[in-house]
Amino acid sequence: MKADASLAKTYPQVYEMVEFHNKGKAPHWTDYVSKDLVLAEVTPGQVVWEMEVKESHCNQLGNLHGGCVATLIDICTSFVTLAHEGKSKWRSMGVSTDLSVSYFLGIPAGETIRIVCTANRIGKNLASIRSMIYNSNGQICYSGSHTKFNIDSRL
Amino acid sequence: MKADASLAKTYPQVYEMVEFHNKGKAPHWTDYVSKDLVLAEVTPGQVVWEMEVKESHCNQLGNLHGGCVATLIDICTSFVTLAHEGKSKWRSMGVSTDLSVSYFLGIPAGETIRIVCTANRIGKNLASIRSMIYNSNGQICYSGSHTKFNIDSRL
Amino acid sequence: MKADASLAKTYPQVYEMVEFHNKGKAPHWTDYVSKDLVLAEVTPGQVVWEMEVKESHCNQLGNLHGGCVATLIDICTSFVTLAHEGKSKWRSMGVSTDLSVSYFLGIPAGETIRIVCTANRIGKNLASIRSMIYNSNGQICYSGSHTKFNIDSRL
Amino acid sequence: MKADASLAKTYPQVYEMVEFHNKGKAPHWTDYVSKDLVLAEVTPGQVVWEMEVKESHCNQLGNLHGGCVATLIDICTSFVTLAHEGKSKWRSMGVSTDLSVSYFLGIPAGETIRIVCTANRIGKNLASIRSMIYNSNGQICYSGSHTKFNIDSRL
Repeated sequence: MKADASLAKTYPQVYEMVEFHNKGKAPHWTDYVSKDLVLAEVTPGQVVWEMEVKESHCNQLGNLHGGCVATLIDICTSFVTLAHEGKSKWRSMGVSTDLSVSYFLGIPAGETIRIVCTANRIGKNLASIRSMIYNSNGQICYSGSHTKFNIDSRL
Repeated sequence: MKADASLAKTYPQVYEMVEFHNKGKAPHWTDYVSKDLVLAEVTPGQVVWEMEVKESHCNQLGNLHGGCVATLIDICTSFVTLAHEGKSKWRSMGVSTDLSVSYFLGIPAGETIRIVCTANRIGKNLASIRSMIYNSNGQICYSGSHTKFNIDSRL
Repeated sequence: MKADASLAKTYPQVYEMVEFHNKGKAPHWTDYVSKDLVLAEVTPGQVVWEMEVKESHCNQLGNLHGGCVATLIDICTSFVTLAHEGKSKWRSMGVSTDLSVSYFLGIPAGETIRIVCTANRIGKNLASIRSMIYNSNGQICYSGSHTKFNIDSRL
Repeated sequence: MKADASLAKTYPQVYEMVEFHNKGKAPHWTDYVSKDLVLAEVTPGQVVWEMEVKESHCNQLGNLHGGCVATLIDICTSFVTLAHEGKSKWRSMGVSTDLSVSYFLGIPAGETIRIVCTANRIGKNLASIRSMIYNSNGQICYSGSHTKFNIDSRL
C-alpha cells in the first residue's frame, strides 16, 4: 500500500495500519491487492483508494474477479474505522459480521479504479461502511456494504 | 482443482470447467484458491468442496481472510449452475449480480474446511445458490448467498 | 400468533414473546402478519412457522410482497434467539444489524407457506439466523439471512 | 402516495404508478405505507420520498420496524426504474431478485424521514438501486440495496 507520509501525523492509526500491511510477513491474502492499493484521500468518515487492475486480479474473461472485488471492499472499508474520531473511536478494525457486494459492470485489466469508502455509522460496538467502485470513466461498477464488530476490549 | 476423472462422464460441464481452471494461463485471481480446492461431491443442485486452509488464505490474525471467504463462495457456488439439469440448463456459469457473506467463527490455517454449495433455484435467467462453510469440527463458520445472471445467449 | 400451550413449559421465553405479540396494543407493524402466523415447531436452533397468504400480504400482481417477505423473515428468525440454550443464552431478541433477502418464485394468496428459521450461530453478542420460505409444493421461493446484536445488558 | 400533478408531464410513468397505488383495491401490503409516502423529488436516476413515521410502522419498542424499513426500501427504490431514461428504459418496475438492508439507528414515531433512492445502474435486464433513510436530524439510520430483473418482455 502506498500512502503519503504526512498521514503519519494527521491519521496515525491509518498510517500504522498501512505500514503493518507493507511489513507483514508474506504470504497473506491481503498481499494479492495491497501492493497495488494507493491511499488517495482520508477524511473523517471517508477513505478513497486507487488501484490499477492487473491480470492477477481478474477472472478468465479478463475482468476484475468478483472475489477480488469483495476482497477490495473488505480491506478498503475497514480503514474507515481507523479514520473515525469522536467518542466511539476504534483502536482496531474489528471483525466482519456481514459483507454484501453488487456487481453492475465489469472492469478489465489496465484500468485504474477508484474505491470510495464512506462510513454509514461508526458506533461503539458496530460499524457500517459502504463502498462504491468506479472505473476510469467514473461509472459505478460495483457497490458494497460491510458491517464490522468492535473487538477492542479483547485486545 | 482436483476432481475425480469419473466426473468427465457424469458431469462433463463441471469437469471441463475444473480443467479450464487448471490449464488457464496464470496468474488469475482464482489461482489463489483453485490449486487447493478439492471437488468432493457433485449431485444435481449441490456441489461440495474441501480445502486445507493455507497461510496465504489468511489475514494477519491467522484466520481465513474475509475476502478469501467471499472468493471461495463466488467460485464454489458457480459450479452448481453447471451441475444443474432440466429445462433451464445453463451452458456457462453466468455473471454475478449479488454476493453476500456472513461471518460467524474464524478458521485458522491448517484446518480442512468443507464448502457446501446448494441451489436455491436455477431458472432460465437467474440462479441463486447458497453456501455454508464448515470447519474441521463441523461448525458453521461462514454462510453466503450468490445470485447469477445467465449470459448463454451472448456466448 | 398461534402457539401450542405446551410451549409455555418447554420454551417459556418463546411462548411469552408470542403472548406479547398477541396482547400488544394495536396497531404495530407486526400486526400485519402476526395474527396469521402459526408456530409449527420449536427446537433448539430452529423455529418453523406456517402462514396462509392473504391478499393483504400481496402486491398488486397477487403475489406475496417483497416487503412482506422481509417482514416475515425479520420476525420469524428473531424467535430463534429465544429458543437457544447454552452459555450464550439471550434474554431478548436483540436488534437487527443486517437483513438480506433473495427472491426466486412468487407465492399467490391462498397458499400456505412454511417459514423455516435456523440458527447459523448464536453467540454472546451476535446472532445469525437463516430462513427459507417454501410454497405449498415444497419449493424454495425466498431465502433470507438476519444478523442481530444482543442488547440484554441495556435492558 | 402524494405527488405533484406536474409529474404527469415530466415523469408520466412515475405519476401513473403513484396513481395506480392510490386507486388500487385495498387491502395490499403497500397500503401500510403508501398512504403516508410523499414523493418529494424526481430526477433521472434519483427519487426522494418523505414520510411521517406512525405507530403502525413501528415495533413494540416504538421504533420503525425492520420489516417496514425493508418494505419502504422495496417500494421506494422501485420507482427509480420508472424515472430512468435512455436506451435501457424500463416500462415496468420488474421483479426483485435481492434486497439487503443495514440498520444503524432507530427512528421513533413522529419523526419525518427522508428516503433517498439512487440508481447504481439501470441496465437492459437488471437494475440496482441503493437507498439511504435519514431521520429528522439528517442522520443516516438505514441503508439498503435492491436488485431488480426486467420483465417487460412478459407483459
